[in-house]
Amino acid sequence: MKLYTYFRSSAAFRVRVALNLKGLAYEPRFVHLPKGEHREASYGAVNPQGLVPTLELDDGRRLAQSMAIIEYLDERHPRPALIPSEAMARARVRSLAQLVACEIHPLNNLRALQYLRKQLGQNEEQVGAWYRHWIAEGFAKLEAELSGAKDPGRFCHGDSPTMADCCLVPQVFNAKRYEFDAQRYPTTMRVFEECMKLDAFDRAQPSKQPDAE
Amino acid sequence: MKLYTYFRSSAAFRVRVALNLKGLAYEPRFVHLPKGEHREASYGAVNPQGLVPTLELDDGRRLAQSMAIIEYLDERHPRPALIPSEAMARARVRSLAQLVACEIHPLNNLRALQYLRKQLGQNEEQVGAWYRHWIAEGFAKLEAELSGAKDPGRFCHGDSPTMADCCLVPQVFNAKRYEFDAQRYPTTMRVFEECMKLDAFDRAQPSKQPDAE
Repeated sequence: MKLYTYFRSSAAFRVRVALNLKGLAYEPRFVHLPKGEHREASYGAVNPQGLVPTLELDDGRRLAQSMAIIEYLDERHPRPALIPSEAMARARVRSLAQLVACEIHPLNNLRALQYLRKQLGQNEEQVGAWYRHWIAEGFAKLEAELSGAKDPGRFCHGDSPTMADCCLVPQVFNAKRYEFDAQRYPTTMRVFEECMKLDAFDRAQPSKQPDAE
Repeated sequence: MKLYTYFRSSAAFRVRVALNLKGLAYEPRFVHLPKGEHREASYGAVNPQGLVPTLELDDGRRLAQSMAIIEYLDERHPRPALIPSEAMARARVRSLAQLVACEIHPLNNLRALQYLRKQLGQNEEQVGAWYRHWIAEGFAKLEAELSGAKDPGRFCHGDSPTMADCCLVPQVFNAKRYEFDAQRYPTTMRVFEECMKLDAFDRAQPSKQPDAE
């Protein structure tokens, strides 16, 4: 398999973790987002959404969107499971993953911040305030979910990592770039630290990627 | 079942469509987002994420996040299927749903626009430009996906509605509120029109909700 990735992309990071947890090898293809390589026609032929990551299977077929890719990997390579088997547990894991992927990350990714700077003429102080606002809102929700769990485990859901952890960890890395007040989220950070003990998460982090700058 | 909903919430609209497609009756509980009812402590006890929709099962257990809810409904009430059975098709439907739910909607929902107005002091012209920018970016990706399909069907994927259509239709309704240039997205709009022929979509639209203003 080939993974179109960028070291700092949180969405690519999620899939790198999932592949590592499954023990699946992949060949990285680097797409430099700040240089706009994802907007070039050649990449549009790979992924019509023009986004990273893309997973290319050995037969050449391609998948887009990180959570869809992780669900696919989980269906085709069921062990270890990244989505639990019981229906309510599945819904909870997806809900936590989507809390990160739909409520936090989209507001703070590169293109949103660039629009604030370029089109709306916001200075770095204002961009930083925007960033921290959505991080604080989103992490408060995450902390409420995780600390309110009836039967809390070592990870987001239970005692083994799931798709929710694949999403949480990259978001924490991302947040740390903008004066993240980690002390306000003790349960979330406990889960984060637990994940980072695992080689699958550690190896997937931005600074350990071949394209890291 | 009870559905915590707001007539204009695109995320609640997605779940209303799914429930209608499945033929599942629900009792609506109205949460007035502009009045901030979702931020009240009483609603926090219902949904720690403080977001709409929440689906409450007859046994009192609750689910959050629209796509997680739709997947749950599809697992517990498999007919008609809103996620296809074949792995690549499942991935494609999820990818299209996530393209709407992760790339378009979060940047343009009520709280993002409110932050632009209040904290960043942007006027309505600038807020409108922001809105249309993300709509144009996102719908171009959607159109590329849908028009590039090898075997295009009547809906986003194939000849029956899926979770992708549950997400697409509310996003089109949302976009139409801000000078949406529908002619640029002929395939997307063909799918939209096809969906709107179905009672399940029509009945779920904002203006037909009991809490519509």
